[in-house]
Amino acid sequence: MEVFQAIRNRRSIRRFTDQPLPKDALDKLLEAARWAPCGGNLQRWRFVVVTSPSTKELIKKFAPGIFDMPAAFIVVCVQTVQSKHHRDEATYLADCSMAAENIMLQAHAMGIGTCVALSYAKIAVRQILNVPEDVEPLLMITLGYPAEAPEPPPKLALPEIAFLDEYGKEWK
Amino acid sequence: MEVFQAIRNRRSIRRFTDQPLPKDALDKLLEAARWAPCGGNLQRWRFVVVTSPSTKELIKKFAPGIFDMPAAFIVVCVQTVQSKHHRDEATYLADCSMAAENIMLQAHAMGIGTCVALSYAKIAVRQILNVPEDVEPLLMITLGYPAEAPEPPPKLALPEIAFLDEYGKEWK
Repeated sequence: MEVFQAIRNRRSIRRFTDQPLPKDALDKLLEAARWAPCGGNLQRWRFVVVTSPSTKELIKKFAPGIFDMPAAFIVVCVQTVQSKHHRDEATYLADCSMAAENIMLQAHAMGIGTCVALSYAKIAVRQILNVPEDVEPLLMITLGYPAEAPEPPPKLALPEIAFLDEYGKEWK
Repeated sequence: MEVFQAIRNRRSIRRFTDQPLPKDALDKLLEAARWAPCGGNLQRWRFVVVTSPSTKELIKKFAPGIFDMPAAFIVVCVQTVQSKHHRDEATYLADCSMAAENIMLQAHAMGIGTCVALSYAKIAVRQILNVPEDVEPLLMITLGYPAEAPEPPPKLALPEIAFLDEYGKEWK
């Protein structure tokens, strides 16, 4: 699938079929994540692929509303090394978010639906997945074959979001 | 260009030719950004497209080392509305980062090089671009036709970054 087609037609999918995701499909998505840009090539992202039914059940309890019938989860984590670098925390969230977008676009190209979330009970998920103290759960991506085909959400038009050379100046 | 090919072959490009970017190419990149996923479909991203030579010169002074010969900049901004939502600041950084990744993948598919940065003098850039108080400069993306073809950086292998069902458990 062409890049723009994937970007334009990807939707957040929250309802999935029961069909499990093959190992090689998950590998391909992790491979897509691995090649995202990241500050200083530090690659502080880690990915816990959750396919165990009991673990999925536990995680669902702490991520309310979002994960109705997931076939699989990926939780994106990252080592939060002590750093003197001022923008460090922002950098690793940005890095992981770009890796997440790679996963979601590549998934769409493979007919797999995804939904990303930041709002879930991090403390509980940390315990469920045995995430060490110096590693922080960040994004959660639910994955599966789509059982819904949502309409595109309304989006602001370019003149509302783009400016030329200074904030507020018309982009034309 | 296929999604995976763009993900796999995109490199951070820091040296650009003098060739300017056509308006329709910039429009296409903004269009790619516009369709990124975002929390609550709030679309708090704004994009200041900097093509004015004098503005580019000013910005280069406050983003040292990164922007040698940019043909154009996009600064990704976002409205930082007061919010009671706990993870709000993280959400809008994640949203803008996913929009940035869309821009960079689409640019690569169009033969345009990009480099993203979070570390620059935000206060100075805010003044240069007349960014209001309630809007925050976040990511900066430099864009242009590549004048270099960097080798891929060394990347951690999947077994080093992926785990199965709990942190540290072998992904196989």
